[in-house]
Amino acid sequence: MYGIIATWRMAKEGIELADEMLKKGETSGSAIETAIRAVEDFPYYKSVGYGGLPNKEQIVELDAGYMDGDTMSVGALGAIKDFANPISIARKLSEEKVNNVLVGEGAEKYAREFQFEEKEMLTDRAKAFYRKKKKELDQELKPYDGHDTVGMVCLDQSGTVTAATSTSGLFMKRSGRVGDSPIVGSGFYADSEVGGATATGLGEDLMKGCISYEIVRLMKEGLTPQEACEKAVNDLDQKLKAKRGEAGDLSVVAMNNKGEFGCATNIGGFSFSVATQEQPPIVYLVTREEDGHCTFEEASKEWLEEYMRVRMAPVEE
Amino acid sequence: MYGIIATWRMAKEGIELADEMLKKGETSGSAIETAIRAVEDFPYYKSVGYGGLPNKEQIVELDAGYMDGDTMSVGALGAIKDFANPISIARKLSEEKVNNVLVGEGAEKYAREFQFEEKEMLTDRAKAFYRKKKKELDQELKPYDGHDTVGMVCLDQSGTVTAATSTSGLFMKRSGRVGDSPIVGSGFYADSEVGGATATGLGEDLMKGCISYEIVRLMKEGLTPQEACEKAVNDLDQKLKAKRGEAGDLSVVAMNNKGEFGCATNIGGFSFSVATQEQPPIVYLVTREEDGHCTFEEASKEWLEEYMRVRMAPVEE
Repeated sequence: MYGIIATWRMAKEGIELADEMLKKGETSGSAIETAIRAVEDFPYYKSVGYGGLPNKEQIVELDAGYMDGDTMSVGALGAIKDFANPISIARKLSEEKVNNVLVGEGAEKYAREFQFEEKEMLTDRAKAFYRKKKKELDQELKPYDGHDTVGMVCLDQSGTVTAATSTSGLFMKRSGRVGDSPIVGSGFYADSEVGGATATGLGEDLMKGCISYEIVRLMKEGLTPQEACEKAVNDLDQKLKAKRGEAGDLSVVAMNNKGEFGCATNIGGFSFSVATQEQPPIVYLVTREEDGHCTFEEASKEWLEEYMRVRMAPVEE
Repeated sequence: MYGIIATWRMAKEGIELADEMLKKGETSGSAIETAIRAVEDFPYYKSVGYGGLPNKEQIVELDAGYMDGDTMSVGALGAIKDFANPISIARKLSEEKVNNVLVGEGAEKYAREFQFEEKEMLTDRAKAFYRKKKKELDQELKPYDGHDTVGMVCLDQSGTVTAATSTSGLFMKRSGRVGDSPIVGSGFYADSEVGGATATGLGEDLMKGCISYEIVRLMKEGLTPQEACEKAVNDLDQKLKAKRGEAGDLSVVAMNNKGEFGCATNIGGFSFSVATQEQPPIVYLVTREEDGHCTFEEASKEWLEEYMRVRMAPVEE
């Protein structure tokens, strides 16, 4: 069996590339890196890689994480500027003996030393969004609630599970802000003996529950990926509401080492993309029921077309 | 009941200050911050705050984390230079609505904005250690295996549990390297409904098991702090050895919300400091048995004197 699952519709083209690779017997690590690079490179996705929205100083700072479930090796980087593909740097970092998590300038030095592609990541389109937002917020700039991190879990034919993330983080965040995406156990987690999980939403809240670690742990206890995702999201959502009066957006996907998958969310409008040996790449739209149970159905052709039309429409300032 | 537990002998003087505060009914947050500041300020501890050993570029970069177990609020910073008390900045960050984890220059901007004390953290003594190490390593600089992060868990009379860490990280680390200390769930975790835990050791390995989160979770399942610490350390140690052939240093302490405490380690030479309503501040030395069980006994007067003598001896270059 093989398969790959990812947060959001935006992962679809990447998933298609990975699916072809997995079919040919390529590794989970290579397939997930290729899939995430495709999302990073696409200029119309506002929350990952090139075209990602900037922080409050109008600088694009990127986070990424990678975990190999065979060795438990982790690589991650936070608040890195002007490199085209953070995921490739994170994967390379996972191969180091120590110094696996690097941030800021130190991460940039490492990336330069290993000749990763440098690229001005702020696009004219992102600048237009920044100007527009700045006009809207007449008082202090406040971080936008968007949370479209791309996170993926991938299983290859040899049974290796990997997990990975890439994001430009909260729009209008403070310089140096790091969310859950480069934090192992929060943004991503993989164990080839069980499976993997990844999260998207308000990083500051997702990390309070180590949600990706918890999902993998629940799958190890025998829960299906769907059951594990729902339990982890609903428990954390309830705990945050009880202790803080509110919970940020929490959305997750998971796949076990048999290629079975699941998802959960505490918001409306979450979508995910998945392909396995048994099904072609499909985008699903998730509905959360009153009782916290989540169901999903295939996105219609109309929905997919409308999605792309909105993403690529000119920015009205 | 009240109490405070911390990794290593070096926390003793801080624990004594916190013990006095807790006795008077002061909050867990204030007591743990005061205790960690005392360790940060002491120039002879080579792995925390002032006097901490530098990275391979001879710059002291500091990490710290803080969690309030009542609200689950987290504040953390990574790779920050030239501020006297990272723990106070981390605690302040935990009060922000978002942007709770900041790294590098962005973290320094925040600290400057809120007027935290700036201080050149590289001491002449640390420079001497750097020169000596550089001479020893005739080939490429390799990170030193030291791992004396100070981590604490504190319970106050009103039942609030906090957890916090502070460290200068691996000696000779890469610029920008972040270990487990500022990563919630790995370096620290607190939940006032259960208790808290904190870790010290090879950050790159501790984070592979989200070990502090796991200890708190095990205590919630009904394990004593001692049982939870041993199970978490032994499970992760075995998993790392099975999957990677080796495991880095893993040492932990925990306290539940009844003031009961525990510890575990996979190395020789681990010590910890603890005070509760029922016992004065005591330093314990930990022994790991063949079967992974850990016992501890009070450090002798001779041991304590020798410890300080070695720490304060001139650096022989």
